[in-house]
Amino acid sequence: MRLARVGFVVHPGAMEVLAVSECLELLAGEEVGRLGVIVSGRPEIFPVNYVVDGNGILFRTAEGTKLDAATRGAVVFEVDHLDRDTRSGWSVIVHGHAAVYTHFDSAAMRRASSLWWDTPKAHLVRITPDVIGGRRLRHAPP
Amino acid sequence: MRLARVGFVVHPGAMEVLAVSECLELLAGEEVGRLGVIVSGRPEIFPVNYVVDGNGILFRTAEGTKLDAATRGAVVFEVDHLDRDTRSGWSVIVHGHAAVYTHFDSAAMRRASSLWWDTPKAHLVRITPDVIGGRRLRHAPP
Repeated sequence: MRLARVGFVVHPGAMEVLAVSECLELLAGEEVGRLGVIVSGRPEIFPVNYVVDGNGILFRTAEGTKLDAATRGAVVFEVDHLDRDTRSGWSVIVHGHAAVYTHFDSAAMRRASSLWWDTPKAHLVRITPDVIGGRRLRHAPP
Repeated sequence: MRLARVGFVVHPGAMEVLAVSECLELLAGEEVGRLGVIVSGRPEIFPVNYVVDGNGILFRTAEGTKLDAATRGAVVFEVDHLDRDTRSGWSVIVHGHAAVYTHFDSAAMRRASSLWWDTPKAHLVRITPDVIGGRRLRHAPP
């Protein structure tokens, strides 16, 4: 796994590139992220309720577009926390591949049981990251 | 413009599909969204600071991957507001096309001047929506 610098223009004092360890900590502290996939040649974003599982991301989904697209090609997963008042915060981007999760030991079950969004969704999907990157934005006063 | 029902499984009492007018109101009330594009055949998500311009979305960006990808094919734009404590909230998804913005009347300039993220980014980009859709999630007690 390597540190991504994808499309970020870093302005000294305003934007800071985060270490992978910090990205993982930030991911572990949130519960809602956005899954990016390609459906019929077009980009799609789905908000999902997730939980961190080791270095990976677990979420639940029903049969359908999201599951098909997520397990067929590369995926991107984004989590951010940006404060409008201070105009600062962070975002973390995970690039990887997703697969239906079949690893049901008790620790994984416990983690998965904390997912709260849309309980009738039957499939558990895990994103295994290839690249994790993030940045912190600090408001540079005008 | 039509109402999108993209990949949403609607459970009675838990998930509500939003009207386009409500989606536009919700978009107007936020400042940070996520742009989804395809870069070299892979999905990418970029958080952006945006402002609503009529039915469209304005954001600023530098030369680079994001600008190239956004103006070359279809884009998706996502905004959400999800509360962890009540486990409820909403998300709005815009599908459309983006182009470098050249419509600099005074009203557009005023709107664009409220963008605060990353002031050195030189290009103003506008997403023109083809489809706007959204849903509201209400926590269904267990």
